Amino acid sequence: MASAPKLSTWPRVVIVGGGFAGLYAAKALRTAPVRITVVDRTNYHLFQPMLYQVATAALDTSDIASPIRSILRHQRNTEVLMADVTAVDTAARRLGLADGTELAYDYLLLAPGVRHSYFGHDDWEASAPGLKTADDAEDIRRRVLLAFEAAERETDVEKRRALLTFVVVGGGPTGVEVAGALAEIRQYALKRDFRRIDPRAATVMLLEGGRQLLPSYPAELGDRARESLRRLGVDVRTETFVTEVQADHVSAGRLRIPTHTVVWAAGNRASPLLATLGAPLDKFGRALVEPDCSVPGHREVFVLGDAAAFPGKDGNPLPGLCPVAIQQGKYAAATIRADLVGKPRRPFSYLDKGQLAVIGRGRGVADLGPLHFHGFIAWLAWIFVHIFFLIGFRNRLVVLIDWAISYVTYARGARVITGHPRTEPGPHP
Amino acid sequence: MASAPKLSTWPRVVIVGGGFAGLYAAKALRTAPVRITVVDRTNYHLFQPMLYQVATAALDTSDIASPIRSILRHQRNTEVLMADVTAVDTAARRLGLADGTELAYDYLLLAPGVRHSYFGHDDWEASAPGLKTADDAEDIRRRVLLAFEAAERETDVEKRRALLTFVVVGGGPTGVEVAGALAEIRQYALKRDFRRIDPRAATVMLLEGGRQLLPSYPAELGDRARESLRRLGVDVRTETFVTEVQADHVSAGRLRIPTHTVVWAAGNRASPLLATLGAPLDKFGRALVEPDCSVPGHREVFVLGDAAAFPGKDGNPLPGLCPVAIQQGKYAAATIRADLVGKPRRPFSYLDKGQLAVIGRGRGVADLGPLHFHGFIAWLAWIFVHIFFLIGFRNRLVVLIDWAISYVTYARGARVITGHPRTEPGPHP
Repeated sequence: MASAPKLSTWPRVVIVGGGFAGLYAAKALRTAPVRITVVDRTNYHLFQPMLYQVATAALDTSDIASPIRSILRHQRNTEVLMADVTAVDTAARRLGLADGTELAYDYLLLAPGVRHSYFGHDDWEASAPGLKTADDAEDIRRRVLLAFEAAERETDVEKRRALLTFVVVGGGPTGVEVAGALAEIRQYALKRDFRRIDPRAATVMLLEGGRQLLPSYPAELGDRARESLRRLGVDVRTETFVTEVQADHVSAGRLRIPTHTVVWAAGNRASPLLATLGAPLDKFGRALVEPDCSVPGHREVFVLGDAAAFPGKDGNPLPGLCPVAIQQGKYAAATIRADLVGKPRRPFSYLDKGQLAVIGRGRGVADLGPLHFHGFIAWLAWIFVHIFFLIGFRNRLVVLIDWAISYVTYARGARVITGHPRTEPGPHP
Repeated sequence: MASAPKLSTWPRVVIVGGGFAGLYAAKALRTAPVRITVVDRTNYHLFQPMLYQVATAALDTSDIASPIRSILRHQRNTEVLMADVTAVDTAARRLGLADGTELAYDYLLLAPGVRHSYFGHDDWEASAPGLKTADDAEDIRRRVLLAFEAAERETDVEKRRALLTFVVVGGGPTGVEVAGALAEIRQYALKRDFRRIDPRAATVMLLEGGRQLLPSYPAELGDRARESLRRLGVDVRTETFVTEVQADHVSAGRLRIPTHTVVWAAGNRASPLLATLGAPLDKFGRALVEPDCSVPGHREVFVLGDAAAFPGKDGNPLPGLCPVAIQQGKYAAATIRADLVGKPRRPFSYLDKGQLAVIGRGRGVADLGPLHFHGFIAWLAWIFVHIFFLIGFRNRLVVLIDWAISYVTYARGARVITGHPRTEPGPHP
């Protein structure tokens, strides 16, 4: 080399979102001659596949979250900004931030993720929180634990029954995992804790609009999941569409379920930030991207992870799973590196390694290409894959210890109620 | 025995507060022929001596807190109620709860603890939170971490300096421990995390109104603490009375310190519940109790822990320390047992085993009767005493691991920002 490029002349790569896509892109650009800024609304990367364990009091937030700036602290070409991006100006190549400042880019990697969606009934959110962020998980945990506390104080039989009814809406992986974990809490973890109520008498219901649980899995594994949930005592109702959610009940057509605790796992909608791109979106608000994950007409703007609708081999968009986000993050980094040395772009192609879900202690389902299995082996596979991808030595150690203790004792380590309910969920204190 | 007493005829013992006094009283009554109800506003027992480690991101709340009902789950004569006690009616022997219901007692053990006090300036609390509850600790942690994040975004030099100034008010054990831990965070834990600011340039100030730090310790150890803090780079100011606290500064006479992060460790006031007793209180709102810890004229009502002003050997009230609370809790239980078999009451007498405080990694002070020591040995003593009294096998294991990791790596495990600021602290997002 005649002379090393100067830092101040390196292209600016702005990454919006410190989830799997954004973080793996940043890491893959570690040695590239670019100046990277990772912008996130929170200060942490969240290991979302284990978020349901925070919501169900098995783990604490800090066990599955790490500050983004700690993860990238040794990466000298990267800075991290805790800020809220409100708009993209693709013509001027600038982002608008909530505090009124702007951020210029040469390359933009948008990976802002999705939020839950209520099919036009946004007012349901107050009574039926979804599970996407650490705050969501802590909110759900608080509601679940407070419902048991309120039931212990309640003398009216009907009101007590409503407090001890937990409804999960949506039979995908999140809904199945939450329902299984709730069934176990009431069966084992809380069994001896109360005097006036028997937590084992609590009802856990799982409502799914379609015919099958885990619709993205082979039908055989959906049936296995249903059978596992049935054994845990979960009341599973398929072909059941929720028509109303209120603070004290859920309705599905003529079915009316008195309850104060509803978890929403039924639908997603991409970040509203994508609407400011001026690019085509699908009905879930996801950006319709080119084969190189870029926005049509803007080779320098990539949309990654579950905020993008990237057509898979079957023509349907790729699912909102971590492996998709990780592979797209790495792909976008490789594409920028190719651009910088004048190589042509290759299209992104997803290598499907399968999917895993857990249904309570010692039970899981695994769909690994030609291999379908379930039960204890699938559960073990889940544990090892998830510990492997969990970031941070301390986290892995603490999570493994927590899992080992709770496997032996059935206890739940994170049952401390802090903070205040974000909305007023019925008769809670 | 002619016949075992029936459960429904056993005297009702109501314990208000699941802190050290309340919990040790309940445990000591495990085999007594009484019906116990432990009432607490929260669902957890908090290991308060380590609370500053949550506020300074070393530990998580669930590491030092356990659900009260889990701790007492095997104690069949005890029930736990998560409820807010608002008044005591000593004539009718009934408690009023916030939800409008009442709770009758034959014996009442009041151990509601203290809150911080602002010497008549309650408006200071919004800018200078105290450190008594888990929510307090999470609030302070959030403020500290958000101040560093805001400083990284700030371009104005003066504003940045104010964001990087942390003021601790009060030179007792809590103030000394918080100041030491803040000094270490900025020196080691965050050192490489930022690009635009150098966390090591942050200022940590400790303001104390008196002449000596740790006023309850021998002067020699107060000086040692001061020297340890000085080596950590803490700006210690004694004989400095705070005269004003605002969102963007603290004043002490003519001294004006621009800051957005103030921790209040300067004064306490007993729970307002005590005022409903109709019994004599001291100027800090603590109940002036009889030699048997009971309220004058009400042998069946005990006030325990730091809510009581119990005269020590030197005539001053006993300090608000865990050993006092634990011994009083056990004493009240023994006194009830003596009453039940018709034995006379003996006065409470405090066995002083000394006190320990930590000033950062590897440094501490110990005042164990005739023994005064400091440095590494005092720090080790602190660790072993605190692990010994920490409740729960999982907690001990996880806390020891966290301490070991942070001792080797200087890292802080719990730096994830969740929730929202309880009040608006200046320019935070």
